[in-house]
Amino acid sequence: MLENINTPQNLRALPLEQLTPLADELRHFIVSTLATHPGHLASSLGTVELTLALHYVFNTPDDRLIWDVGHQSYAHKIITGRRDAFDTIRTYGGISGFPKRSESPYDAFGTGHSSTSISAALGMATASKLQGNTTRQHIAVIGDGALTGGEAFEALNNAGTSKANMLVVLNDNGISIDKAVGGLDGYLTEITASKHYNRLKDEVWNRLGGNRQGARSHSRSRSFFQKLTFTAKTALLGGSNLFESLGIRYFGPIDGHDLPHLVAMLEKLRQLPGPKLLHVITVKGKGMPTAEQDPVVYHAPGLYNADTGRQINNGKPAQTIKYQEVFGRTIVELAEANQAIVGITPAMPTGCSLNIMMEAMPDRAFDVGIAEQHAVTFAAGLAAQGMVPFCNIYSSFAQRAYDQIIHDVALQRLPVVMCLDRAGIVGEDGPTHHGAFDIAALRPIPNLTIAAPMNEHELRNMMYTAQLPDGGAWVIRYPRGNGVLGQWHNQFETLEVGRGRCVRPGTDMAVLALGHSGNDALAAAEQLQQQGLSVAVYDMRFAKPIDTQLLDQVAALPYQRIVTVEDGVLCGGFGTAVLEYMAQSHPESVHRIVRLGLPDDFVTHGPVATLKRDCKIDSAAIAAALTR
Amino acid sequence: MLENINTPQNLRALPLEQLTPLADELRHFIVSTLATHPGHLASSLGTVELTLALHYVFNTPDDRLIWDVGHQSYAHKIITGRRDAFDTIRTYGGISGFPKRSESPYDAFGTGHSSTSISAALGMATASKLQGNTTRQHIAVIGDGALTGGEAFEALNNAGTSKANMLVVLNDNGISIDKAVGGLDGYLTEITASKHYNRLKDEVWNRLGGNRQGARSHSRSRSFFQKLTFTAKTALLGGSNLFESLGIRYFGPIDGHDLPHLVAMLEKLRQLPGPKLLHVITVKGKGMPTAEQDPVVYHAPGLYNADTGRQINNGKPAQTIKYQEVFGRTIVELAEANQAIVGITPAMPTGCSLNIMMEAMPDRAFDVGIAEQHAVTFAAGLAAQGMVPFCNIYSSFAQRAYDQIIHDVALQRLPVVMCLDRAGIVGEDGPTHHGAFDIAALRPIPNLTIAAPMNEHELRNMMYTAQLPDGGAWVIRYPRGNGVLGQWHNQFETLEVGRGRCVRPGTDMAVLALGHSGNDALAAAEQLQQQGLSVAVYDMRFAKPIDTQLLDQVAALPYQRIVTVEDGVLCGGFGTAVLEYMAQSHPESVHRIVRLGLPDDFVTHGPVATLKRDCKIDSAAIAAALTR
Repeated sequence: MLENINTPQNLRALPLEQLTPLADELRHFIVSTLATHPGHLASSLGTVELTLALHYVFNTPDDRLIWDVGHQSYAHKIITGRRDAFDTIRTYGGISGFPKRSESPYDAFGTGHSSTSISAALGMATASKLQGNTTRQHIAVIGDGALTGGEAFEALNNAGTSKANMLVVLNDNGISIDKAVGGLDGYLTEITASKHYNRLKDEVWNRLGGNRQGARSHSRSRSFFQKLTFTAKTALLGGSNLFESLGIRYFGPIDGHDLPHLVAMLEKLRQLPGPKLLHVITVKGKGMPTAEQDPVVYHAPGLYNADTGRQINNGKPAQTIKYQEVFGRTIVELAEANQAIVGITPAMPTGCSLNIMMEAMPDRAFDVGIAEQHAVTFAAGLAAQGMVPFCNIYSSFAQRAYDQIIHDVALQRLPVVMCLDRAGIVGEDGPTHHGAFDIAALRPIPNLTIAAPMNEHELRNMMYTAQLPDGGAWVIRYPRGNGVLGQWHNQFETLEVGRGRCVRPGTDMAVLALGHSGNDALAAAEQLQQQGLSVAVYDMRFAKPIDTQLLDQVAALPYQRIVTVEDGVLCGGFGTAVLEYMAQSHPESVHRIVRLGLPDDFVTHGPVATLKRDCKIDSAAIAAALTR
Repeated sequence: MLENINTPQNLRALPLEQLTPLADELRHFIVSTLATHPGHLASSLGTVELTLALHYVFNTPDDRLIWDVGHQSYAHKIITGRRDAFDTIRTYGGISGFPKRSESPYDAFGTGHSSTSISAALGMATASKLQGNTTRQHIAVIGDGALTGGEAFEALNNAGTSKANMLVVLNDNGISIDKAVGGLDGYLTEITASKHYNRLKDEVWNRLGGNRQGARSHSRSRSFFQKLTFTAKTALLGGSNLFESLGIRYFGPIDGHDLPHLVAMLEKLRQLPGPKLLHVITVKGKGMPTAEQDPVVYHAPGLYNADTGRQINNGKPAQTIKYQEVFGRTIVELAEANQAIVGITPAMPTGCSLNIMMEAMPDRAFDVGIAEQHAVTFAAGLAAQGMVPFCNIYSSFAQRAYDQIIHDVALQRLPVVMCLDRAGIVGEDGPTHHGAFDIAALRPIPNLTIAAPMNEHELRNMMYTAQLPDGGAWVIRYPRGNGVLGQWHNQFETLEVGRGRCVRPGTDMAVLALGHSGNDALAAAEQLQQQGLSVAVYDMRFAKPIDTQLLDQVAALPYQRIVTVEDGVLCGGFGTAVLEYMAQSHPESVHRIVRLGLPDDFVTHGPVATLKRDCKIDSAAIAAALTR
């Protein structure tokens, strides 16, 4: 059937009873395609029925459908004209892993970062109202994890006094990327366990019961059945609820895998004007036992066997470990020696490897939920009271905490160590996720030390130095993926703040590199040596304060060319820091300077090496800039 | 009595019954001091009793007390050793208008921007727990307006699963700076009106009733008595409530002006471990009839007569109007012609003058609450559906929406016009409020047009140009305060994007100015003309795209010196944009360039002219840079 579904119009022509077999087919298509074309698996498996029901009931694309974050939008992509392109997902030149307005009229709003969908849907609904369209519906599908992001609450608060036609579908699976945390999670559990229990059990329990129960008990996740055990707290829930408190009509919870019921419910809600919320219970990884059992691992499992669901190891033993693992192991090592150290992550414990500390020292490592703003001010509060918090946030998500870094950390000179993971080009996740802006955005902030490690030892030394007394506020930014040294573990060394180093002497020209790009600079220097050119490579270590002493030396040497390189935006970044100083102190050197960095454009998705090539920051580009 | 209160220890030595007369004295002291030393009046009048009760019951500064935003902290400052300095508040070299860690150990956490206090208090409470201190209390006092900020919700969600000793005091007056908005506001009204009504009425109604009622009926605010009329919705509220949904124990509401009751309640809560919330009803402007009647105007009334409470007009008729008023009147003018235009403010309608549009076109102007993140994505949603939203946010508050500007607006090339009010030095509000970082932070973002008007006509022309078809995403940044032209109204002209202009020809040297700083540049040029020097002044208009054509011309002319000037941080700002281009295209010109801008340090509070002098961006500094 699936091959005849080219648009939702084809879907709507089907009788209701064909939707359930179609869902099975769609799920199988996703599982078999992603087995060899890695992507976000478990989220999309959880929303297959919901996707079909939404497109069946609502008149997309005229009705607007927004997928919060967008991990869960694969079924949506497949039935909205992108079935044949689905095996290109997240590949260079292929379709995006997230909804994207430029890709399809069915992608009403681009997502990638969490908790934006309600705001956007409310904006669209308000526009429709002003444009005199009173029937169009605007639907935001948001997970229980994303709902903890402050922006979602801001939007609900605003929606509560609006009369706009907006439907929020709360896709509640108790798992975002890692397990959802916080009071809201417990609350949703209580709702699920209490007043609607009776209605729910007939519809859901029997469908999911029995054989599933055994499998679920192995799951690390808070399963549907575990939710049902929270009956002790039932009495807490009365006639009101959190959403209705805010003026949003609440419906549910209902089983998100029961297509006829979903369709019937959505049909009713479609007739209802104003803002409303439907609480849908889904199972992340639904239909694939390995993914249901471990939805954290199967969030994005890489290659796997489509029949068994087992992950496939590439076989090549890795020569190096990831920067993430270096962070995770090193913070534990530091925290063992320094009782003041605590770790914080906004909902990315597995991704950033803080889970290592959460297991080793559960009292001192905090997953605060999808809540970057809170994470940083929470860290500032801890620091104000003598602790040394390491707050680990993906670079692009840290954009959410820009004000808090300025207002709560830097202004008060509090010793918070911001570890910005996934800085630079991240690869397949694309433009929403590249850590492109951190250096340029943070460099203007007073009182910050901004460092970037060239390898694993440097990361460890930076973490070590940052936690020393009177260290002040630090940013340590490092890329997604593997380091370059076989032996990642070293004895800690104290780095001098604001001092770079020469990692390769040379006489003809020089590269000033920040962070991991130093390895590309070394490769370029090697390459040019074969042409008889002597290239010096400086690992500057710090974007702020910039090493003016080293720059004085470099300016005084007879380099024909001085190339700066970084995996961040060129505009205002590390190279600009070099330029600002050189222009002021050594203006005669400026004509020799060439800056390499990300262009003034959003960078697409694809393999890191390809994107670095396109952005002209790889070793070939460095060599070309040195010799052009 | 007040003159004997040098620390809260003195306060705690008093018998309880003396607190009420002390409150009267303290209120009188605030009213009489601020009459001639302008500050945030009404918020602090509303928290006099609460301040005394908190310091009476809790062992500050060992117990930690955090005032969200901090407008309401004046009574706190007076009784914590700053009584004699109180008449220096917000003046250059005097005490800050906000809590500040470096000012007093009683200021446990610096504030200024809203909605941070719960995060910080939770951080401190968590630190105390880790440090083995199980008795210390950590108190966040937060207004009902600030509670709509997403970060507060993120923090409550996190706190709900914590066992840390944290007390949130919800200071509910229905008014933040303007009237509080959104579903939460209605909800708090319902709580107040319903289940606790009976307990409340004995304690509060009789105290506030009768004569107050008449006065309150004139108020623009949602008054305490208006709240009590919402009984129709009482049935909605059952045993649960929003805060308990999140795992926070809820107490109240209680009368925030009844000292004995406040003290008794806080004594009880002090014994209670874990996170809890006390809902306190206060009257903003309490005790001063004019302020109670119009708490929006009396939020920061400037000079007034201490006896009558009437505002005092300086008498000097202003020659010019504020940029804010130009914005407010111009958006209405544009919106009359262009049906697609809508206006958005996150809780600053009076401050930014969007209130003019809210009155003229209530359907098309939106106050979304203290919710900068939501404001921007909401705007993006409107724009995705064909509207042209003008989203007006104070520059320093827009730091809260940095990710949304990147991820929702710029990446999708949506035609949102971000109007950044209070860009540059704001004066008395100081480091938390200066709009210092916007140019440097936004310039690296692709697809943005960044403009700054030199005067009122320029602002109007930029607003006009931004709303033309296919205008893309704009930022227009302009300062707090008055323009420079007598006649602010002009016929709209279309500006060429990315093109500056010469506003004064000259042959010896040149100033490249961005925005309002162009006026300082003109003054410097006038001054130097008297010394026989011919100084050209260029109003560059756009920080992005920078006018490379004009820079080519400037580089080719025999100027001895080229000075750039801006009221934003030097690091990465407009001057750096000039430098980046010149270094690449005209490296021989670089030795002639001097960049002026804000230093790499947070700028203190004080008069704008004084701070511009200190930062070396005033006309004298420009003249000095030209001739040094």
